[in-house]
Amino acid sequence: MSALKELVFVGLGLHDEKGISLQGLEESRTADQVFIELYTSILPCFSMQRFEAFINKQIHVVSRHDLEEECGRVLLKAAEKGKAVFLVPGDPFIATTHVALRIAAKKRGVKTRIVHGASVMSAIIGLSGLHNYKFGKTVTIPFPENLSETPYNVIAQNKKLGLHTLCLLDIKTDEKRFLSISEALMLLLKIEQKRKQGVITQDTIAVGVARAGSGAPALKADFVKDIVEFNFGDPPQSLIFPGDLHFMEAEALVALAGAPKRVKRLGK
Amino acid sequence: MSALKELVFVGLGLHDEKGISLQGLEESRTADQVFIELYTSILPCFSMQRFEAFINKQIHVVSRHDLEEECGRVLLKAAEKGKAVFLVPGDPFIATTHVALRIAAKKRGVKTRIVHGASVMSAIIGLSGLHNYKFGKTVTIPFPENLSETPYNVIAQNKKLGLHTLCLLDIKTDEKRFLSISEALMLLLKIEQKRKQGVITQDTIAVGVARAGSGAPALKADFVKDIVEFNFGDPPQSLIFPGDLHFMEAEALVALAGAPKRVKRLGK
Repeated sequence: MSALKELVFVGLGLHDEKGISLQGLEESRTADQVFIELYTSILPCFSMQRFEAFINKQIHVVSRHDLEEECGRVLLKAAEKGKAVFLVPGDPFIATTHVALRIAAKKRGVKTRIVHGASVMSAIIGLSGLHNYKFGKTVTIPFPENLSETPYNVIAQNKKLGLHTLCLLDIKTDEKRFLSISEALMLLLKIEQKRKQGVITQDTIAVGVARAGSGAPALKADFVKDIVEFNFGDPPQSLIFPGDLHFMEAEALVALAGAPKRVKRLGK
Repeated sequence: MSALKELVFVGLGLHDEKGISLQGLEESRTADQVFIELYTSILPCFSMQRFEAFINKQIHVVSRHDLEEECGRVLLKAAEKGKAVFLVPGDPFIATTHVALRIAAKKRGVKTRIVHGASVMSAIIGLSGLHNYKFGKTVTIPFPENLSETPYNVIAQNKKLGLHTLCLLDIKTDEKRFLSISEALMLLLKIEQKRKQGVITQDTIAVGVARAGSGAPALKADFVKDIVEFNFGDPPQSLIFPGDLHFMEAEALVALAGAPKRVKRLGK
């Protein structure tokens, strides 16, 4: 048992068990107990077995119930006795759901540390070739049963300011359900029909990104009417609606994301 | 020599040579040639020697001149003969400066791939306990010799929308100059004196973050008049100006960032 009472949040990155940093691997190897959650996002090719072999110890899977209803008690108890590592997809606090656990640990006198991992946010932006500092507020597009006009409003607001919008698409990992780019566009077009503000029409440029962080991501920029038909393959998928384009961004969309050549003329 | 003509951009993460992912390490080990740039951001404890020992090969350092004036010719030539790996601090395309190289590679028929790393963007947001989807446009505060009102305007615009602003602080790695949180606040107060819109006053809440991604980051939320005096220690440093606070965010600022207790009452 390590003498230190601590809870170390370790990011797993984006795709498989090789997304973790060397630091994260070392923390896992020296931990007294290792926990993992796999419900906030998907790691398409992550193998628990391979990862357990890497660190040479057993990993306990914690569920949404363990964390939300039980307030992460099992993790806190482990951290009160020694060093507990909590493996989380992506970068640990980007999905916001684990902040309550960090506060609870602090209140119990348990030290917390974070070992960061690649986040889907910066990965998608990096792949797109668009400038990071030109993105406004991010939004998640929910499944049709939770239809919301918020994404439409956020995209509209960002566009008005000339900013790009990153849209994450809803997932339900327990049901293996993932909103697709096509479905998300259909939902937005439906809201457009009602709101008629010209925010997302058939002729709007959108950028679809699938499997960011994998060895074979898909990236395609095109008009909505064409992107709806594009086959992006397996999830996870996401969408960007560009605002004003710098000439270098327009060139990147054509060269890297297969946008129609006339998109170049939109760059300033 | 590997048969594949390719250029693999690999993120180094945030702090030292252990920030790279296992995937990134593997790519470096199997590369024909490995390059690195260390001018877009700082990796405070990165040791080239230790990293060369990890991958068991020599690394070529490329300068801003090599990349911007020479268009990365040395990298493209290596990638035309085999597998070239380009190591970049953070997540490779977040600093925007390497998009031109990726486009040039594509035009020469050289395949490119990205192995993502932790980015300072998600690391700072994660440390702060603030909700990622409530951040608006990001801005960089430049050194006093390049005084600009843009950061003030961006913070004002985000606040009007209820959104938080992440402010990166200017660095000149070649001169080992780093804008500090105190200096940045003084610059913003100076602009406030002129603009008088009440965007950043002595009584505005700000969150300072230093050394995100290291084992000992500093995090402090307080009123501007107190944060100006706070000793954050070594660079890199950055700032967040919160917009509207959710009650959980207000609680996180008090519990995790040492904000005065009355900040809790600002949460909704």
